[in-house]
Amino acid sequence: MTVTKVGVLGARGKVGSAICEAVRAAEDLELVAEVDQGDPLSALVDAGAEVVVDFTHPDVVMGNLEFCVANDIHAVVGTTGFTDERLETLRDWLADSPDTGVLVAPNFAIGAILMMRFAVQAAKYFPSAEIVELHHPNKADAPSGTAHRTAAMMVAARAEAGLGQSPDATSTELDGARGADVDGVRVHSVRLTGLVAHQEVLLGTQGETLTIRHDSLDRSSFAPGVLLGVRSIAAAPGLTVGLDAFMDL
Amino acid sequence: MTVTKVGVLGARGKVGSAICEAVRAAEDLELVAEVDQGDPLSALVDAGAEVVVDFTHPDVVMGNLEFCVANDIHAVVGTTGFTDERLETLRDWLADSPDTGVLVAPNFAIGAILMMRFAVQAAKYFPSAEIVELHHPNKADAPSGTAHRTAAMMVAARAEAGLGQSPDATSTELDGARGADVDGVRVHSVRLTGLVAHQEVLLGTQGETLTIRHDSLDRSSFAPGVLLGVRSIAAAPGLTVGLDAFMDL
Amino acid sequence: MTVTKVGVLGARGKVGSAICEAVRAAEDLELVAEVDQGDPLSALVDAGAEVVVDFTHPDVVMGNLEFCVANDIHAVVGTTGFTDERLETLRDWLADSPDTGVLVAPNFAIGAILMMRFAVQAAKYFPSAEIVELHHPNKADAPSGTAHRTAAMMVAARAEAGLGQSPDATSTELDGARGADVDGVRVHSVRLTGLVAHQEVLLGTQGETLTIRHDSLDRSSFAPGVLLGVRSIAAAPGLTVGLDAFMDL
Amino acid sequence: MTVTKVGVLGARGKVGSAICEAVRAAEDLELVAEVDQGDPLSALVDAGAEVVVDFTHPDVVMGNLEFCVANDIHAVVGTTGFTDERLETLRDWLADSPDTGVLVAPNFAIGAILMMRFAVQAAKYFPSAEIVELHHPNKADAPSGTAHRTAAMMVAARAEAGLGQSPDATSTELDGARGADVDGVRVHSVRLTGLVAHQEVLLGTQGETLTIRHDSLDRSSFAPGVLLGVRSIAAAPGLTVGLDAFMDL
Repeated sequence: MTVTKVGVLGARGKVGSAICEAVRAAEDLELVAEVDQGDPLSALVDAGAEVVVDFTHPDVVMGNLEFCVANDIHAVVGTTGFTDERLETLRDWLADSPDTGVLVAPNFAIGAILMMRFAVQAAKYFPSAEIVELHHPNKADAPSGTAHRTAAMMVAARAEAGLGQSPDATSTELDGARGADVDGVRVHSVRLTGLVAHQEVLLGTQGETLTIRHDSLDRSSFAPGVLLGVRSIAAAPGLTVGLDAFMDL
Repeated sequence: MTVTKVGVLGARGKVGSAICEAVRAAEDLELVAEVDQGDPLSALVDAGAEVVVDFTHPDVVMGNLEFCVANDIHAVVGTTGFTDERLETLRDWLADSPDTGVLVAPNFAIGAILMMRFAVQAAKYFPSAEIVELHHPNKADAPSGTAHRTAAMMVAARAEAGLGQSPDATSTELDGARGADVDGVRVHSVRLTGLVAHQEVLLGTQGETLTIRHDSLDRSSFAPGVLLGVRSIAAAPGLTVGLDAFMDL
Repeated sequence: MTVTKVGVLGARGKVGSAICEAVRAAEDLELVAEVDQGDPLSALVDAGAEVVVDFTHPDVVMGNLEFCVANDIHAVVGTTGFTDERLETLRDWLADSPDTGVLVAPNFAIGAILMMRFAVQAAKYFPSAEIVELHHPNKADAPSGTAHRTAAMMVAARAEAGLGQSPDATSTELDGARGADVDGVRVHSVRLTGLVAHQEVLLGTQGETLTIRHDSLDRSSFAPGVLLGVRSIAAAPGLTVGLDAFMDL
Repeated sequence: MTVTKVGVLGARGKVGSAICEAVRAAEDLELVAEVDQGDPLSALVDAGAEVVVDFTHPDVVMGNLEFCVANDIHAVVGTTGFTDERLETLRDWLADSPDTGVLVAPNFAIGAILMMRFAVQAAKYFPSAEIVELHHPNKADAPSGTAHRTAAMMVAARAEAGLGQSPDATSTELDGARGADVDGVRVHSVRLTGLVAHQEVLLGTQGETLTIRHDSLDRSSFAPGVLLGVRSIAAAPGLTVGLDAFMDL
């Protein structure tokens, strides 16, 4: 078995330390560098890291990636804040380092990625489609970003298939009962003490319904997806956006 | 085994004929009269009916009941349109016939009655409570009457227990995402081809949630409740409102 | 809009008459022949049927199809009993009629087909996988054929991805509690009055689960799939097995 | 507002420290003593504790309770291992201290207690009843103790109502598919990575089903129940077994 040497940036943060633990537990990966604020990036080179995982901060991630690419180290990035401009800069750097791969992904939870993918694939076969997302009550936005994105992708798939609005004979509505209207797909946001992060996509046609539900019960759910990225990135030079590119769907 | 003689009013309607079938299938009940528009009510007396089931129409139900009470026949009534005034009239008639019982109930689906009961019993133990009701897309009102009634009863139970609003940090909301606000309990209405009538009551507290879900998959779901009424009414002289009075909860 | 002329074999059966109704309701289809036991097959030719739907009986379906292929009429077949030998015979007939298409499918419920497809696609990403299928209590076999088939396909996908048994530390088991073992995927069969036909595929990995649920609430759920077959078959000469061949997945 | 002074035994354990945190966060409670192995019990008296919470170990709990009762301190006990003999000893001690109350409960999760209560209340109204419990794959026993207890209580309620076996026409069964048979109620145990502790009680009658589901997503779910016990125990002299005695159901 080939063992890949992995460095983690942001290693002492909550997410970073969970990733360190997951890398340590994987037989085909070796954790060679744990780097955080104040540590020199050169530690990655010194340790011979082949792949770096970056869950840091929008303020520092570009510096980190410039260093990685310059030193031919692949990177798997969960840090947020990637604008089109930043992605363009990344592509420029990678053009000069043709063997290096960088994965930038907004979501590493494999279950969430599959839920969205299946929702979109199924969307064109069902006249009716709605989303119920359920979260802990400390969440600031309703609907969640994931639910909004799922709805938008389903709307596009429906439009392509010539499906219009879902049928709905509602004539008397208590304000808000039918949820938020994301271009024809209704989205309902439940906020409940005790919940973590959950989403249900409901699709209906004559006599049958299909429900795709994702439950995130623990914040460690990103770990298997990060490892999938780490194991796939060396074979994917250049910039990859979204973990689903590495999934066989 | 004592066998009770049952007459059905509205016997040729959709609901009535399903009740006739259920009575016929019950070993302890005998269907002695099937009466519908145009048939004389005296057929009930001639057949010796002890209990009459009435699923007819608001326009005729009071005449039916006046006849039943005058002839000392118990009645189980699913016909709608009972105002306080009508109930008062019924009580007056029953006062002159002290052995006769009449049950008027808005809902005979045992599962729905239990769902509401449990939702109210549980309401005071959970800081968070929301309702998701799901129906076929031909439904005109959102939320459903059952969901609205459930929410109102839960609100009352919560208030009595000193519970205020459910916690909710939502600061950015796409209009309608958080559902309809029924005095502090949020209600979400899903409309989906393929569904019949479903309701989920969600309750949350620290680290755990309780979900009570009722699925009505077939319009025959009222039948077991009607039979429960038929079997209980002889022992309950006077007016009873709501089938739960005959349930041991 | 081109209108396709459709004939239905077994038109007076429960399924057949539901299909007649669905064809009649579709703007792009015209019901030109309703044929059942005792009617001559020539009625299909006389009416100019371009596509025939066959929901008949294993005893007569081969004769029906021989006639259709000989007369260059496409066929969409939901009748059961297709052995490899029968499929081979069909292929031979079709070889002589290169423009004709025949679709044979064990399942026309689009939701069920998608559930199976997604279950297989997702299987390789989750260490844990189980199936809960729920049906009315009159069902003779446990697990259902669909659940058994889903499990077998998931087992194959897991094996290909190098996944072994799902983790399971059970050391004390009340006989049967952990369900039926289909080569490493556990299948649980619930039988409940009031249910129709439902299946839930549960997949779990670190900190998250994905659930894919299909609810068949009404026996008319095959209709949209049959129409999809009718609309697709003319463009697919030869033999096609399984409706998913006509779905863009 | 009266403030109750609370001491915690086993205060440095996982559960104990969570309880300390919950007591500290409650406005009507004051945490006056945190006692663990090696600390003298007299600290409870010195601090003026009115109620003590004991989540310790079967080896020490009886000594703790003897001390509490002798010093007129109420106790709320989640420690396991209470045999009938131990309960009898407790009753003897309490007989000499008529104002003191002790609550011993096997389960403080309010949602789980309500699930069981509602399952039993509903059991007599549904011909069909089954249980699906779902847990993480490290669990040793299948079914869970809670599921087994729920089934046994439902069986008793069904028997009292004259209900026999649930209807089940299964004639071909893959071994284990229909779950474990707990005196006529089938119990299915799902084991899935990512899950915590979940249970679903399914009840079915003609045309409708009722589902009662409890999800425990976090081990802190006992805290609200412990606080309910702390707030109720002073008004309940003597021995109380089970938290539901303090719930208004």
